[in-house]
Amino acid sequence: MEEYINIRVDVLRKFTVDVLKKLGVPAEDAAITVDVLIAADQRGIDSHGVQRFKRYTDGLQTGVMKPITDMKILKETLNTLLVSGGDGLGQVVSYRTMKLVIDKALKNNVAFAAVRDSNHYGIAGYYSMMALEHDLIGISLTNTAPLVVPTFGKDAVVGTNPISIAVPAGKERPVVLDMATSTVTRGKVEVYGREGKAMPITWATDELGRATQDIPRVLANWLEKRGGGLLPLGGAEEESGGHKGYGLSLAVDIFSGVLSGSAFGLNLYARKDVPAKVSHFFGAIKIDAFIEPALFESMMDEYISMLKNSQKAADKDRIYVHGEKEFELCEQRKEEVPIYYKVVEELRQVGKQFDITPPF
Amino acid sequence: MEEYINIRVDVLRKFTVDVLKKLGVPAEDAAITVDVLIAADQRGIDSHGVQRFKRYTDGLQTGVMKPITDMKILKETLNTLLVSGGDGLGQVVSYRTMKLVIDKALKNNVAFAAVRDSNHYGIAGYYSMMALEHDLIGISLTNTAPLVVPTFGKDAVVGTNPISIAVPAGKERPVVLDMATSTVTRGKVEVYGREGKAMPITWATDELGRATQDIPRVLANWLEKRGGGLLPLGGAEEESGGHKGYGLSLAVDIFSGVLSGSAFGLNLYARKDVPAKVSHFFGAIKIDAFIEPALFESMMDEYISMLKNSQKAADKDRIYVHGEKEFELCEQRKEEVPIYYKVVEELRQVGKQFDITPPF
Repeated sequence: MEEYINIRVDVLRKFTVDVLKKLGVPAEDAAITVDVLIAADQRGIDSHGVQRFKRYTDGLQTGVMKPITDMKILKETLNTLLVSGGDGLGQVVSYRTMKLVIDKALKNNVAFAAVRDSNHYGIAGYYSMMALEHDLIGISLTNTAPLVVPTFGKDAVVGTNPISIAVPAGKERPVVLDMATSTVTRGKVEVYGREGKAMPITWATDELGRATQDIPRVLANWLEKRGGGLLPLGGAEEESGGHKGYGLSLAVDIFSGVLSGSAFGLNLYARKDVPAKVSHFFGAIKIDAFIEPALFESMMDEYISMLKNSQKAADKDRIYVHGEKEFELCEQRKEEVPIYYKVVEELRQVGKQFDITPPF
Repeated sequence: MEEYINIRVDVLRKFTVDVLKKLGVPAEDAAITVDVLIAADQRGIDSHGVQRFKRYTDGLQTGVMKPITDMKILKETLNTLLVSGGDGLGQVVSYRTMKLVIDKALKNNVAFAAVRDSNHYGIAGYYSMMALEHDLIGISLTNTAPLVVPTFGKDAVVGTNPISIAVPAGKERPVVLDMATSTVTRGKVEVYGREGKAMPITWATDELGRATQDIPRVLANWLEKRGGGLLPLGGAEEESGGHKGYGLSLAVDIFSGVLSGSAFGLNLYARKDVPAKVSHFFGAIKIDAFIEPALFESMMDEYISMLKNSQKAADKDRIYVHGEKEFELCEQRKEEVPIYYKVVEELRQVGKQFDITPPF
């Protein structure tokens, strides 16, 4: 395992907010952005936490990300929104759009928004979970850089395009599905590479599009753009269900990139010197439009118990429901989050650039 | 491959409709039910075609399926419906509910329905595709018998719970995702068993919950209810993404069984002598609420071309989009469908029971 130090959440928050403010991000927007990043670290999704902070400051500095998120509602009905994020911060337009989606769902039962002209929005689950306190089911989808090969393809065309669905329960914690539609994300391949672990055959393909377990080769191919990519959930073949992961990834991009009339597939992140043109899709469904929320929540509790109390497979001692591990980590990480030492170093460098000495 | 004969669609249709009518199913309802079954054969999803017909006639005879589908709207808003299928035919309540969902979406942008007290509804894609001609995106989900193990579980608790999403295109054919959330369905394991083929390690578990490739053992375990089951998409381990397929299956059951206030998980098909209590979830989203349908459709065409014209992996000569194979088969099978000989024999036996001699 890589070395890390624990950093107080309030300290990390103040430092990153201060940097964003120096880059011209309004205080409230900086707070939203940082909250989404730190939530990822608290939930154990490190790859989407503050280790991405430098990508944001770089984007803001080169101008491909705008510090002021000029969010515009392009089209609106009682149940739908088409929103432009003005190439600003993905977190800011996503947070504000999900608020509007929640309001509309509370008034009109169901609501959806497609967001265009955005950037990386952090963890998908942050926005779906915003629905929970309102007795709504929350949905959050986003397209991402094309890193995943379609089934039988040599080159990456679709993204790791995650799906998040958050569902309230009663006494139990909510069920929060938050999953990339590829078997794993690029970061996981890199971690396995650094740790010298063997990669399963369903993770990635070589430069000829064949499933491979050769991590150094895959990483070199990616670096030199020689072909190959991540595999969709299910792996390389239809026999193992790879076309299903590919289909889910495509569906996420249809709801995000196509339905917002924006970039899809290879057109995202097409050039480093222009905005990435990421799109998202948010939804909320009012439980009360179908059944009493109290009944729904007690049924969810019963379902969670049914799953968790079910007999375990050989050598396994626990069955999880989705979100459970993350909620447990989050409680442990209320005050402090573990940050890899090399991320700490990177944050210190960022601080130096902006004359802000991080107190860690 | 198993032996089959080609049967004319009109002949097959008339025979099966006549049998259902003898069992007290109204003519229009019989026509709907049979249309869904034959569509499965035409699309190449044989497992959901007329080879299931006897299960319907058996269900109607034992009384656990009602011939008259007493569909009741239990709750209704501008955008949502809670419907009871009165333990009638799954196809009938599903077809009629999807019609209502389409009407509501055309008027109010988005609409969803949860259907309870239903039965097996055939192929999920039949209903999602009903949305296509109205420039709507169609969604169809259903829970199914508990045959799938949760990640790290020994016993099957969730279903193969399919997801179908149908999306209109322009000059290209629509994209129709229609996938079980398990790696494969039970029928596929049986077919591999009969053909003596090796089963991938991501398909099923043994009686101790360990991933296995031993088909005879798995089939015997299922028959004698000794434990084990199908694996979710992604297989047995989190490393291969099995928790994602499990999460999707759970999500489908939450939208179907829980949101309709009905049976979920182990409570479906709990006893052979009482109704199965299957639930479904349908949705439709109006493209025009977001962007011009003509723009959307041309973008879909462009996306499909981008995928299909992308470079192929070694030894692969074609990249498919979802639904493509099924549309091609459907064109070939417009007039005639191949029916396995043992299914033909079974249909003849059913005919004999009802004094209807099948003309094949």
